Amino acid sequence: MKKFMYSSLVRRKLREAKIDVGDRIVVVKNGERIEGILMPSHEFSNENCIVVKLDSGYNVGIELDEKTELVKLAAARKKKEERKSPQIKDPNKPTIAILHTGGTIASRVDYETGGVVASFSPEDLLEMYPELGKLANLKSKLLMNVFSENMRFEHYSLIAREVAREVKEGVDGIIVTHGTDTLHYTSAALAFALEDIGIPVILVGAQRSSDRGSSDAFLNLYSAVRFCCETDFAGVAICMHAGIGDEACYILPPCRSRKLHSSRRDAFKVVDDVPIARVGEKIEFFKEYKKKEKGKVKLYPKFEPRVGLLKLHPNISPRLIEFFESYKGLVLEGTGLGHAPIEHGNEAIFRAIKRIAKRCIVAMTTQCIYGPVNMNVYSTGRKLQAIGVIPCDMLAEVALVKLAWLLGNFGKEKAREMLNLDLRGEIVRRRL
Amino acid sequence: MKKFMYSSLVRRKLREAKIDVGDRIVVVKNGERIEGILMPSHEFSNENCIVVKLDSGYNVGIELDEKTELVKLAAARKKKEERKSPQIKDPNKPTIAILHTGGTIASRVDYETGGVVASFSPEDLLEMYPELGKLANLKSKLLMNVFSENMRFEHYSLIAREVAREVKEGVDGIIVTHGTDTLHYTSAALAFALEDIGIPVILVGAQRSSDRGSSDAFLNLYSAVRFCCETDFAGVAICMHAGIGDEACYILPPCRSRKLHSSRRDAFKVVDDVPIARVGEKIEFFKEYKKKEKGKVKLYPKFEPRVGLLKLHPNISPRLIEFFESYKGLVLEGTGLGHAPIEHGNEAIFRAIKRIAKRCIVAMTTQCIYGPVNMNVYSTGRKLQAIGVIPCDMLAEVALVKLAWLLGNFGKEKAREMLNLDLRGEIVRRRL
Repeated sequence: MKKFMYSSLVRRKLREAKIDVGDRIVVVKNGERIEGILMPSHEFSNENCIVVKLDSGYNVGIELDEKTELVKLAAARKKKEERKSPQIKDPNKPTIAILHTGGTIASRVDYETGGVVASFSPEDLLEMYPELGKLANLKSKLLMNVFSENMRFEHYSLIAREVAREVKEGVDGIIVTHGTDTLHYTSAALAFALEDIGIPVILVGAQRSSDRGSSDAFLNLYSAVRFCCETDFAGVAICMHAGIGDEACYILPPCRSRKLHSSRRDAFKVVDDVPIARVGEKIEFFKEYKKKEKGKVKLYPKFEPRVGLLKLHPNISPRLIEFFESYKGLVLEGTGLGHAPIEHGNEAIFRAIKRIAKRCIVAMTTQCIYGPVNMNVYSTGRKLQAIGVIPCDMLAEVALVKLAWLLGNFGKEKAREMLNLDLRGEIVRRRL
Repeated sequence: MKKFMYSSLVRRKLREAKIDVGDRIVVVKNGERIEGILMPSHEFSNENCIVVKLDSGYNVGIELDEKTELVKLAAARKKKEERKSPQIKDPNKPTIAILHTGGTIASRVDYETGGVVASFSPEDLLEMYPELGKLANLKSKLLMNVFSENMRFEHYSLIAREVAREVKEGVDGIIVTHGTDTLHYTSAALAFALEDIGIPVILVGAQRSSDRGSSDAFLNLYSAVRFCCETDFAGVAICMHAGIGDEACYILPPCRSRKLHSSRRDAFKVVDDVPIARVGEKIEFFKEYKKKEKGKVKLYPKFEPRVGLLKLHPNISPRLIEFFESYKGLVLEGTGLGHAPIEHGNEAIFRAIKRIAKRCIVAMTTQCIYGPVNMNVYSTGRKLQAIGVIPCDMLAEVALVKLAWLLGNFGKEKAREMLNLDLRGEIVRRRL
């Protein structure tokens, strides 16, 4: 990483105020006062920008102009060299592995386009958030650099194998940083792939890139590390903002959560279930959970690629359903309690589903998001069951991942038997 | 409608207690006391069942056994003949047309299977809910008897034409009874098809069939009729339960609402917007609205059938996208702010979308449900826009209906221009 990319204006102002990286400073701009630690400059920054770490842990980028005032409050507490040296392992602290997969949490604003591009290395993140190192011995590894909309089943297998490797190496907890778009598909995939895992595996994303003042990356990461260090929880979960403010994060169940908002920090919601825990000032649990047993895991890392997901809607073409004829599994996202159009001009759809259901496993979920699938209430549901459609009372995204996982690891007969067994909390026993 | 389908047990018990249809009675069964008006028997009822109308307006079905006690409290207030005769038009009351399309609101429990089948005629409904007749001069018409999962674009055209006909005939308001599964697709279709309509057109469904004690049909219908009679609102809207209790209904915007729960009475929620009004003891408005102008409507009843909706997900096949090559429009339900898998093994998907977008209108929505579509934030969004994908900040279901409607009535060029114009409140101006 190159340093000292500042413009002559910024360099002059820093020189005049005798400010160096790591110093505690005050910036006064347009009458507003911002106090914090000056962070290292980055090659990607606007050259007139400095990044200041606030006491809240958040970083804020400030563009300097001639009128901006800079004041040094205190010198850096440690020498730069010291800060950059690898952390010395403290035998009294737990060891947490941070596995990076890409996404906004590892992204920066591209000041040329105003957009966001993937950029941070794991080392950058640790440098930006030194607080994490106070909680635990951290090891960090870049598995891939993929925006989560591009994640494929083979990525799930790769992450699951890497997690299992870290478990065998004896770490106390694992953080997987991940884009948020499909984070809930991946959380389900890891929950299924890593049976009886004896340590916490926490997926963490961010809705705002880490170099933005408004980034949620710090609190999400920090809360996840705290949760790994301060509790005896074992299993896969998600850690994201509990609300739009910065009071707390939720630890969310991997197979009952969903990205339900495209932009808010609290985008992830539990559906028909409760969070596992809340990480605020204290850590509060809402659910029973498995306790830590370091080193334990059974790995089932395969996912059958010929499994589809199809949302049904008025006027859908029967030929679209026929597309899945060569598939091994198909999850339908039906309407209401789990219905498909089958009468009043939709008879060809009924015949297409019937033909597919003879060859492959066809599971019915609901596009309502909330509420049960129940195909015994209406005649439509009963007719669909009669031709082999299996009611599947899970989130559609989880049903897709589960069916691909079952077919990938256990074969068709077992998959059919196991589809409606509650293996990882994916089926709600008592609805809220 | 055949009457007197009761078993000998029921006939004997009614005879012994000198009870006739319309009488106020008390039923005591298993220690529970139920008071209300005895409703007519229906040919579909379990022959041991009587239906009692409670003072709340709800009907409850009670299966009689030898031990059940029946007591007559008061004789029917009117003669049966009088009640069954067509309502005499009161010139001081508004005239409301109820157009029936089928669904749970017009369904009954099939006591053989325990399921629910479509059954009531419009006359049955009016007979079950005589309160409606006190508010307005009612006319009722059975347009079709279709569970809403079976609705197709041609049904939208048919309903729109019938609504326009009623408008021209001078009614003051129209209720469209409809199944709930796809009610939000139909509400959008009618909102687009009926431009500048000068009277209220309220879609009403029920989550529990009308012959069940727990049915929401009565309150939903009653609130819709009240809303038509007591306000000067004009336009298409939905009337469903505001909460799980029976305190009030919401009048919901036709293009910003969605069935978000498969079974609750308050299944329909406004997404990133507010309800139009709340019909409780009083009627309270939350939004500006167009005022009544009787007789006014511009009808655009066509919907292009070759328009698709596809939910994207990890590992989706590029061949599934190629399926839409012969289509005129395609709505993608992307992830996050409006993303598709396009890199890291998904390059064939990018090429497929590019090919489709050259021939047809490809609009991007989000499977998050809540929050904006914004394809300028991330590189994925910008790359998709560069190959012709149009960001479409609407509910995916509404985008499907709108695109089919635009292509059906205005042709491809106009459709492209009009897609992102806010025509019926489908685009949120300020998000909550």
